[in-house]
Amino acid sequence: MKELEEKIRKEGRVLPGTILKVDSFLNHLVDVALFSEMGKRFAEEFKAESITKVLTVEASGIALASIAAQFFPNSPRVLYAKKSRALNQDSNVYSTPVFSFTHNKQYLMTVDKQYLLPTDRILIIDDFLANGGAVNGLLRLCEQAGATVCGIGIAIEKGFMGGGDRFRSEGHHLCSLAVVDAMNDGEIVFRQ
Amino acid sequence: MKELEEKIRKEGRVLPGTILKVDSFLNHLVDVALFSEMGKRFAEEFKAESITKVLTVEASGIALASIAAQFFPNSPRVLYAKKSRALNQDSNVYSTPVFSFTHNKQYLMTVDKQYLLPTDRILIIDDFLANGGAVNGLLRLCEQAGATVCGIGIAIEKGFMGGGDRFRSEGHHLCSLAVVDAMNDGEIVFRQ
Repeated sequence: MKELEEKIRKEGRVLPGTILKVDSFLNHLVDVALFSEMGKRFAEEFKAESITKVLTVEASGIALASIAAQFFPNSPRVLYAKKSRALNQDSNVYSTPVFSFTHNKQYLMTVDKQYLLPTDRILIIDDFLANGGAVNGLLRLCEQAGATVCGIGIAIEKGFMGGGDRFRSEGHHLCSLAVVDAMNDGEIVFRQ
Repeated sequence: MKELEEKIRKEGRVLPGTILKVDSFLNHLVDVALFSEMGKRFAEEFKAESITKVLTVEASGIALASIAAQFFPNSPRVLYAKKSRALNQDSNVYSTPVFSFTHNKQYLMTVDKQYLLPTDRILIIDDFLANGGAVNGLLRLCEQAGATVCGIGIAIEKGFMGGGDRFRSEGHHLCSLAVVDAMNDGEIVFRQ
C-alpha cells in the first residue's frame, strides 16, 4: 500500500538491531485516517470470507483491528487476546506461551473460551509481523478453539525475518500492507 | 446513554468485590457498532474544544479512543500511554506511577515527550473509571507536558468509587456514558 510505504519512508527510523521505529503513526501515536485506509484495504482483501470475529493481541494490535472491523459486513466483533492476567479474568481460557523480542520475555497469551468458538471465521490482524511469534500464538488459540482462520492482515511485515513467508508456505492467506525486505544503512527496501 | 445502559444490564455480570464484568462487549470482546455510537456521543459532547489529540492508556482504552477519534474534526491522532517499557522505546518520556486495582500492582505510565506537546488540546478517553487512578495518571502526564486537558470521556463510571465526582469537583469536563451508582445484590443502579 503506497500510502503506508511513503509514511514509513518519511517517518520510520531504522535503529540498531533491525529495529524499525514507527511509533509516530503506528504503535504509540496512531494516525487514525491512515488506519481507516488500511482497514478498508483489509475489508476488500477478505470480503469473501464471511468473517465473524477479528482477532488481535493487546496492546498495539487493538487500534488497527478495531478500526478495520468497522468496514466488514455483518459487524464482526473484535477479540483481543491478553498478555497478562487481570484479577477479574475467568480461569476458563485458551492459552499459549509467546516469546516477545520487543520486550525480551515470554508471556502467556490468553482468550476466554466463551468468546472464541468452533463456528467462528477469524481474521487475525496485527500491526507488525517479524518472526511471527504473536501471530503464531493467535493461530494456536484458534486451533485450541476449533475456529477457522480465514486470513491474516498485517500493517508492516519485516520480510527478512521470515515469519510472513513461513505462514504463506503453510497456506495462510496473508495480506501485509507493506513488506520491508531490507534495512541497509538506514535505507528501507520494500518488497515489490 | 440508554443503549450502553441496556447492554450493561443485559450482559454485565456483578462479581464479588464490586467487580462489574463487561468483557463480552467492552474490554475483551469489543462491540464495534456500539463503540461507534459511543464515539459519536463524545464527538458531540466535545465538538467545541478543537481537540488535537485523544489520549488513552493501553490496553483497554485503545479501541474506544481509536474509534471515537474518527468522529472528531481535523483528524486528531490517538496517543496511548504505555504501561511497560519496550526495548525500542525512547528514554525521553514523561512518566508517572499508577496503581492498578485490576492487576493489584503499580506500574509506570509513560508517553514519549515528542508526542505530547504544550500546544496540544487533549481529550482523555478510557473504558472504565473507578477510583480514577488511570485518568489521574494521564492528567499528570499532560501536566508535565504543559498540554491543555479539554475533557474526559468515559464509557462506564463506577460512581460509588468516587473518582468521577472528584474530577468533576476539580472542574474537569467529564462525560461518562453510563454511571453505575450501586450494585446491590447483583442489581445495577444507574445515576439519572
